[in-house]
Amino acid sequence: MIGSLQGLKVLDLSRVLAGPYCTMLMADLGAEVIKVEQPGIGDDSRAFAPFVGKESAYFMSLNRGKKSICLDLKKEKDKEVLWELIKKCDIIVENFRPGTMEKLGFGYEDIKPINPSIIYAAISGFGHTGPYSQLPAYDMIVQAMGGVMSITGEQGRPPVRVGTSIGDITAALFGTIGILAALNVRNQTGQGQKIDVSMLDSQVAILENAIVRYQTSGQAPKPLGTKHPSIAPFQAFPTKDYYVIVAVGNDSLWEKFCKILDIEYLLIDPRFKTNNDRIGHVDELEKIIKQITITKTTDEWLEIIRAAGIPVAAINTIDKVVKDPQVLARNMLVELVHPVAGKMIVPGNPIKLSLNPPVIETPAPLLGENTASVLQEFLGWDEKKAADFVSN
Amino acid sequence: MIGSLQGLKVLDLSRVLAGPYCTMLMADLGAEVIKVEQPGIGDDSRAFAPFVGKESAYFMSLNRGKKSICLDLKKEKDKEVLWELIKKCDIIVENFRPGTMEKLGFGYEDIKPINPSIIYAAISGFGHTGPYSQLPAYDMIVQAMGGVMSITGEQGRPPVRVGTSIGDITAALFGTIGILAALNVRNQTGQGQKIDVSMLDSQVAILENAIVRYQTSGQAPKPLGTKHPSIAPFQAFPTKDYYVIVAVGNDSLWEKFCKILDIEYLLIDPRFKTNNDRIGHVDELEKIIKQITITKTTDEWLEIIRAAGIPVAAINTIDKVVKDPQVLARNMLVELVHPVAGKMIVPGNPIKLSLNPPVIETPAPLLGENTASVLQEFLGWDEKKAADFVSN
Repeated sequence: MIGSLQGLKVLDLSRVLAGPYCTMLMADLGAEVIKVEQPGIGDDSRAFAPFVGKESAYFMSLNRGKKSICLDLKKEKDKEVLWELIKKCDIIVENFRPGTMEKLGFGYEDIKPINPSIIYAAISGFGHTGPYSQLPAYDMIVQAMGGVMSITGEQGRPPVRVGTSIGDITAALFGTIGILAALNVRNQTGQGQKIDVSMLDSQVAILENAIVRYQTSGQAPKPLGTKHPSIAPFQAFPTKDYYVIVAVGNDSLWEKFCKILDIEYLLIDPRFKTNNDRIGHVDELEKIIKQITITKTTDEWLEIIRAAGIPVAAINTIDKVVKDPQVLARNMLVELVHPVAGKMIVPGNPIKLSLNPPVIETPAPLLGENTASVLQEFLGWDEKKAADFVSN
Repeated sequence: MIGSLQGLKVLDLSRVLAGPYCTMLMADLGAEVIKVEQPGIGDDSRAFAPFVGKESAYFMSLNRGKKSICLDLKKEKDKEVLWELIKKCDIIVENFRPGTMEKLGFGYEDIKPINPSIIYAAISGFGHTGPYSQLPAYDMIVQAMGGVMSITGEQGRPPVRVGTSIGDITAALFGTIGILAALNVRNQTGQGQKIDVSMLDSQVAILENAIVRYQTSGQAPKPLGTKHPSIAPFQAFPTKDYYVIVAVGNDSLWEKFCKILDIEYLLIDPRFKTNNDRIGHVDELEKIIKQITITKTTDEWLEIIRAAGIPVAAINTIDKVVKDPQVLARNMLVELVHPVAGKMIVPGNPIKLSLNPPVIETPAPLLGENTASVLQEFLGWDEKKAADFVSN
């Protein structure tokens, strides 16, 4: 066993982001992922910018390590092939709007009698139950409805979205956890089950302290820029060339911080003695610190503040992130060679397992690249039968 | 089997957020989680605002369903008890700075010979390898270093953090996936392993299209407010009373959108014909649409745009989120009764499994609430021996 999910066969009917992210993680962990795509078109995201030649870099970054098989689910013959594949697979992942798979005849209730041990994961905008179940969703829709947008950004300024699609990605992560939890059951009882994960639910689940702050104060939390709701100083301060992030998480760090900034007189100022005092006078505190941080560059401050053992950071733009020594040392950027697009860097997998580490070696498949070989391998078809299917 | 992780025993040495979030998910899924806390103090977050009476609502929201046992790991006697517990447990979770567990004598290499089947999850700021391994981290530090902060917010404005601690929470989710993937191995071979998940790695893993955009253009992506980098119109527009989020994801939705806004003349305007045209003239497009959206309230627009089948949303503040009919229908807010604090609402679990759904019934433990009962249950001590241990 090389990958931790080695031997598991995943039938992936998903497209764009939440579903493909979930199956990408499973492929990294050693599962064999068969991506079912519409002939001629494929996953919608094959048409998403940016491109390398005619290949979508967006698609390639989310579908490494998978196999692509083309099936036209409007044709009976292709539906029959899908049924045969379903019988041979351990896990199905789909992220259609609820009801779509049922209309196609592949809802969980249709599949369960045929393959009762299958684990069926449905990831959708709002879930398979409830009044919004049928509404269309995108990442930004659930970021807005789920509350995170209301606490991100600056007060009094227009709203901002989280710059990465956490609506999709957190749903993918919760979905993957659900699949593996169901796998634990199946490993013991042989029984499969359905997992119904929604992007909106996932947003609510990551609200963290916002829900308890509302509950205890009766006030809806507001966006705070980079400030922490209950720790200070814990924010971005301007420097000579940009900003530096400082996280003075407790009173002992506060003492060190005052020393290196040469503002030790603040330690006996009743406005700033304890964290609670500082939170109560956070704007005055910011003014004092700002006047000092602005006198040096970010790099200078990084060195000084880091040497004092205080958590500190620059705000890395993506060009810096991809060159960061820690990111590189942790193998968080992997080069793959795509048969058409050539060299591609994809993000690594953060799940570092000591015995069965994730393996990222194979680039994303071309549309239908593996149709024939999957039919031979999974359904025992001979070469000619598979080739005939592909050419028809 | 009720929960999907029923029967698994988790020894939880973690505190504050990433570790406790991971073990909270496992507790929801039916694992028995024993939280080891320092006598008299406990998890640091027991001292975090907001409070209900003297109980931290922050702590209570992250530690439902767990048991608390007090052990002083500076005392030999207590260390021996921890060793006994380690022998009986299936999973350990810790989120100390790398090296701390090793100094205490409980590193994975110490534990492995004693309990080779144990799954040991270490969640840390930067991971157990690499040049930054020993640096201190908080959520905001990795949000800044990992790139998400550089693409969130408005261009030319000060930086903003994502309003929820996605640095901690995504690490918790990747950590949980790692544990369950390792469990799949263990269910087959009996062998345990170590999982080393870092918050910084997790940030890189969720950057999504930002990495490919940088790779293909050579330009570091910039924050875009609520705008989408490659789809338009796909952003927040001002209304009479606040904003409305509209996600016009394709040309057919664009046609519908123009109809309901009575701007069908734009459909033949070469600046706005295709999505690529619209992206090229996104500021002009925004100006035209803004003049119309500002004439009605958000609620009015929600009704009109939703009726046309176009993805649309209000930006819900937390007070709205906790009353949202879909959120309530999906059981995403659960009321627990804490023995001291009384009624508490905690976020539900988004992993809806059909056979073994998550169960959230027990509030967070008081400090050391279960020391005696855990010692009796796990180590077979009699009542007197356990009571003596607690009172010494």
